[in-house]
Amino acid sequence: MRTRVPKYLLGAAFGAVATTLLIGTTAMAEELDPVAKLGEQTSLLWIVLGAALVIFMQAGFALVETGFTQKKNAAEVMSTNFAIFGLGFVGFLFVGFPLAFGGFGTVPGQFGLTPMNGTGLPAVGGEFTGIFYWGYTHLGDAATPALLGFFLYMVAFMDTVATIPTGSMAERWKWKSFVWWGLFCGALYYPLFAAWTWGGGWLAKSWETLHLGAGYVDFAGSGVVHAVGGAAALAGAIVLGPRIGKFGPDGKARAIPGHNIPMAMLGCLILLFGWFGFNAASTFSSTDVQFATVAANTAIAGALGTVVAMYYITWKTGKPDPGMMVNGMLAGLVAITAPCAFVSPWAAAVIGAVAAVLAIEAVFFIERRKIDDPVGAIAVHGVCGTFGVLAVGIFANGKYGAGWNGSTTTGVAGIIKGEWGQLGAQGLGVLVIWTVIFGIAFGFFKIQNKFTKGGIRSTEEDELAGLDLPEMGVLAYND
Amino acid sequence: MRTRVPKYLLGAAFGAVATTLLIGTTAMAEELDPVAKLGEQTSLLWIVLGAALVIFMQAGFALVETGFTQKKNAAEVMSTNFAIFGLGFVGFLFVGFPLAFGGFGTVPGQFGLTPMNGTGLPAVGGEFTGIFYWGYTHLGDAATPALLGFFLYMVAFMDTVATIPTGSMAERWKWKSFVWWGLFCGALYYPLFAAWTWGGGWLAKSWETLHLGAGYVDFAGSGVVHAVGGAAALAGAIVLGPRIGKFGPDGKARAIPGHNIPMAMLGCLILLFGWFGFNAASTFSSTDVQFATVAANTAIAGALGTVVAMYYITWKTGKPDPGMMVNGMLAGLVAITAPCAFVSPWAAAVIGAVAAVLAIEAVFFIERRKIDDPVGAIAVHGVCGTFGVLAVGIFANGKYGAGWNGSTTTGVAGIIKGEWGQLGAQGLGVLVIWTVIFGIAFGFFKIQNKFTKGGIRSTEEDELAGLDLPEMGVLAYND
Amino acid sequence: MRTRVPKYLLGAAFGAVATTLLIGTTAMAEELDPVAKLGEQTSLLWIVLGAALVIFMQAGFALVETGFTQKKNAAEVMSTNFAIFGLGFVGFLFVGFPLAFGGFGTVPGQFGLTPMNGTGLPAVGGEFTGIFYWGYTHLGDAATPALLGFFLYMVAFMDTVATIPTGSMAERWKWKSFVWWGLFCGALYYPLFAAWTWGGGWLAKSWETLHLGAGYVDFAGSGVVHAVGGAAALAGAIVLGPRIGKFGPDGKARAIPGHNIPMAMLGCLILLFGWFGFNAASTFSSTDVQFATVAANTAIAGALGTVVAMYYITWKTGKPDPGMMVNGMLAGLVAITAPCAFVSPWAAAVIGAVAAVLAIEAVFFIERRKIDDPVGAIAVHGVCGTFGVLAVGIFANGKYGAGWNGSTTTGVAGIIKGEWGQLGAQGLGVLVIWTVIFGIAFGFFKIQNKFTKGGIRSTEEDELAGLDLPEMGVLAYND
Repeated sequence: MRTRVPKYLLGAAFGAVATTLLIGTTAMAEELDPVAKLGEQTSLLWIVLGAALVIFMQAGFALVETGFTQKKNAAEVMSTNFAIFGLGFVGFLFVGFPLAFGGFGTVPGQFGLTPMNGTGLPAVGGEFTGIFYWGYTHLGDAATPALLGFFLYMVAFMDTVATIPTGSMAERWKWKSFVWWGLFCGALYYPLFAAWTWGGGWLAKSWETLHLGAGYVDFAGSGVVHAVGGAAALAGAIVLGPRIGKFGPDGKARAIPGHNIPMAMLGCLILLFGWFGFNAASTFSSTDVQFATVAANTAIAGALGTVVAMYYITWKTGKPDPGMMVNGMLAGLVAITAPCAFVSPWAAAVIGAVAAVLAIEAVFFIERRKIDDPVGAIAVHGVCGTFGVLAVGIFANGKYGAGWNGSTTTGVAGIIKGEWGQLGAQGLGVLVIWTVIFGIAFGFFKIQNKFTKGGIRSTEEDELAGLDLPEMGVLAYND
Repeated sequence: MRTRVPKYLLGAAFGAVATTLLIGTTAMAEELDPVAKLGEQTSLLWIVLGAALVIFMQAGFALVETGFTQKKNAAEVMSTNFAIFGLGFVGFLFVGFPLAFGGFGTVPGQFGLTPMNGTGLPAVGGEFTGIFYWGYTHLGDAATPALLGFFLYMVAFMDTVATIPTGSMAERWKWKSFVWWGLFCGALYYPLFAAWTWGGGWLAKSWETLHLGAGYVDFAGSGVVHAVGGAAALAGAIVLGPRIGKFGPDGKARAIPGHNIPMAMLGCLILLFGWFGFNAASTFSSTDVQFATVAANTAIAGALGTVVAMYYITWKTGKPDPGMMVNGMLAGLVAITAPCAFVSPWAAAVIGAVAAVLAIEAVFFIERRKIDDPVGAIAVHGVCGTFGVLAVGIFANGKYGAGWNGSTTTGVAGIIKGEWGQLGAQGLGVLVIWTVIFGIAFGFFKIQNKFTKGGIRSTEEDELAGLDLPEMGVLAYND
Repeated sequence: MRTRVPKYLLGAAFGAVATTLLIGTTAMAEELDPVAKLGEQTSLLWIVLGAALVIFMQAGFALVETGFTQKKNAAEVMSTNFAIFGLGFVGFLFVGFPLAFGGFGTVPGQFGLTPMNGTGLPAVGGEFTGIFYWGYTHLGDAATPALLGFFLYMVAFMDTVATIPTGSMAERWKWKSFVWWGLFCGALYYPLFAAWTWGGGWLAKSWETLHLGAGYVDFAGSGVVHAVGGAAALAGAIVLGPRIGKFGPDGKARAIPGHNIPMAMLGCLILLFGWFGFNAASTFSSTDVQFATVAANTAIAGALGTVVAMYYITWKTGKPDPGMMVNGMLAGLVAITAPCAFVSPWAAAVIGAVAAVLAIEAVFFIERRKIDDPVGAIAVHGVCGTFGVLAVGIFANGKYGAGWNGSTTTGVAGIIKGEWGQLGAQGLGVLVIWTVIFGIAFGFFKIQNKFTKGGIRSTEEDELAGLDLPEMGVLAYND
């Protein structure tokens, strides 16, 4: 498929984005090729639609997590997922966005071709050079539609990271402690790894410094979003400890069934819908028709994940457990998120199928390690996100991603094409997530726990009674 | 940002829309600039997608209102929100649409630049001159895709108005009386103020007649939709009177908690999603990239509204009440709806934050006035809609809206830019809403109440038992 | 309205799709008209967005069916609707897609003009000639974005068919038997009629062979999707027999009320939203602005269906039954699906109104025939789908569909334009659905019933207890 965009369009992409949409110099804009300009305008529409779809995923996460937890905590769990949208948003708006995309280690702008790769937008023309200028730029009168569209898409991704730990830490997390997590995630936690990868940082550049394939490649965030969120979910679940009664005196796990299975399934279907924005709009371009391949691969992996999870859990337990079908679909979707643009449909099917089995086994493994994750967030986002990052290094078919990360590659290629370097870059990213990024999350929760009166965990009394009345002041369900 | 569309595109916009899409003269269409034409086609797609998103908001309103009310009325409250879509639609299809956009005081067509402003579409070319011709035009074989796309977008906005009073009047409104409201709102109530503003009427032209800024400016309807709906919500709540037991013998308000908080929160997140269509697609153009600024401002105001509401209600009552967080997000979204295209992101943040505080205080204020609004519709839509209209006159940065309402303005500018005229136009609109429009709604409900046997309020017996069985014949929940 | 696309665009459409998007020959692509190419790229975006909307309809069906059935089966009914997405998908991915669109009786490609008509994509250039080549094509490295986008849209339609019988067969269907249906529907059941119509098969060509109008015309699938799904729903309901207790010893039907009316209404509103993708994106083109007419007609029929159903059921029973309002809206939407691009708005209103009455009468008729359909799927999809197919032959206004099915027609025209041939083609399609296709479904369930130990129906014990624990191993609601 390679680069199907004629050269003049590529050239125009640099010019059009930089001048028309970003810098907005009317004088220059009028000199542009009108076709290229129209393509850029439609691309920006695609980004905004994609952002809306990803923001809608907040509803999906909220329903999945609330449905899979207990009735007595339903208002609280739903509210964490609701409030996190605003909390993470505020942190990202004022601090995180400039940090992640403000020009640290920028690579030449590639908006229109490989836009989530490198700082793309800001670096074009070298106009944006520092965090303070940026802070002004996207909040003040000089903010351009393209920059704000880019911000909107990016803030939606950050909020996905922020909401993942609300699942693993559900039913025993103090509201006031949770609030700090939301702000921290938007301002600092998410932006760091984002800067190192999509922000054009050292992992993106590892093709140059370490000769690793095209550098760290993660199309829509199996790693940058899901594994990073999953790492925080694991850290938080460890610091909080398991819910009262989750593990019996004999150490055996006890099932604490969710209070509303249809709610969780609705949430999962909303996530499936939103994922088309999450993955396909990550082309950042409506003229890069790879978005259609991405969308189909996403659906294929989700479908295979569902079916394989159903058969696998039936084989293991005799019943097609709805919770595992949900996690199977989500596992497939999470795992395909990094490789979706780089693999063929058959590989998307394999990735979805493997992810479903991985997620189910990981749920049981995590439980055996006495870690209590009420909704399976660590397994789905952490484990399958990690698998998705590595899957790029295995299944990438070399047909897409020319010049990714500013590299000289003619297409991201994995082991199936005889290339091992890409898997190295992906492995390096995984290593960083599970050491540095996990360490930061763990440190955050540990320190917060130490300096919070009574710790970040709810009192035993509140937990047993349910958090709704003591934390939120209302019950989820009345009558 | 000014007009980033090159002049030939503007010229083409007039021609393309008028001839290709609207009048559909193939002969003329072939002479058009193919790039401009493609832009118009994509713009029409954006309008249709926007309409679908706004129509989906009916689900959001339904869930918010049903979740915040009692279990015993859940089928009835949900059904009013469901049926209103069709009832308002029928009134608008056959009567309201021609009334609102049929050519009363049309200004020169501005489709593609400031399309929600003036009659835009119909006025182009002077082809459409009267209500009867229009009635034929959009129902018969001569109906064009562009006209029908415009109708679809507009009918969705009308239905939002129609559904707002179903919240404030919930749990004590007779179904048969409600039905008449739906038809009346679609046929007459909504179209009047819409004709005066978006229809190119006297408020739109107040820049000319009264020298008020660019005339009444309301990008996506803080006033035309939300305050107008909120005025009807207030009128209806007054005529119906409070629910039995809402105010004790001592006159103190008693909390009647909603029956399903997660349902209401899901509804709010659906509204957030749909709002991107509500606001951003109000550019009526995919080549006016201001849609991206609009979308980002919308999200910013919603996020700030959520967070500020959480802190404010916690400060007031000690708990982050989920109902107030929902109303805080909606308050921010409602308030940014008029100014979203005209303000910088920092102002969107301020507007969202102020709206949240306003909404919470208004909820308590309205309650103290012994008006019973089960879901806070008057506070959210009426008060924050009004604030949003005025916010244009305060925060507009002068960078967008050149030529709005056919005026000679180079951009809508508010007090922060030293301009006071715009606030005058906005204040005039607010005055009209809360006198004339409120008066019409109040008169409608009063007269209907007088001429309906037993009045428009449910019998005491039905209200105490719950409206589901007596009105709908079924219970919301069985088993 | 006729063909508003200038001739050079039509020519380009053939070339652009075939070479740029499908075959992806960069060398040829660069020679293309850049405007036409940009139009094709945006068209592909529209198809992908449409596919996402249709896939989201799975959530709508799931909620409608679960809400209208009993609490004790809620996890099972929800899970069938959830799992069917993956099951049908797998069958279609590996078998059904090549069967339906792999080149049986292809007509010359018409992508961009009448794309759902004939094999369109594959036939262009004669490149794709056989099922095996196709199987490879859409799964391997040679898969193009356009082909995958087309696949994604088509798989979403198939899944709608697959999920329809989960409604009529709810509350008494063994999970393991259901699983086979999902695979069978995706692999064989849906593809057959799809191949005969949208796949360019003998019904599409009946204009040539039997001189019937423009051949079988079904814009977005009143027949190909809804009636075909409804036929399977009827077959399955007959084979399973009614639920225990549905018909008393006196043979009279007993109402078994749904457990969650708000859930069902939310589902219906999600379906309304998704229907804009279902119908409007079936232009397969963003440059064929008929999508706006389609979208408006869809909303008009849904609105009229709702309102007429409300009045009609109130007239019949005294109450505006929420279930009938839901089925009224769905009836209108199903019926307009075939004619939406070919009729004027007034006709859309008539079709929606008639469909609502038809659906309600059909519900009672089916019940009188002792067939138990818990959610009204046969009435809504089967009966109104059939009516929609015939409505093309009655109300088509002759302004759209020039050259449809490769015919020489200048526009699809029905009885109101004095043409009777089209109704013949439509009637032939209806006949085939209710004989051949129904027969296949009936045979499938009969044979499966015979060869399944204990039959495909749940045991009496499970049915009485509710299927959730015995089939899924969990309850839908805990606490």
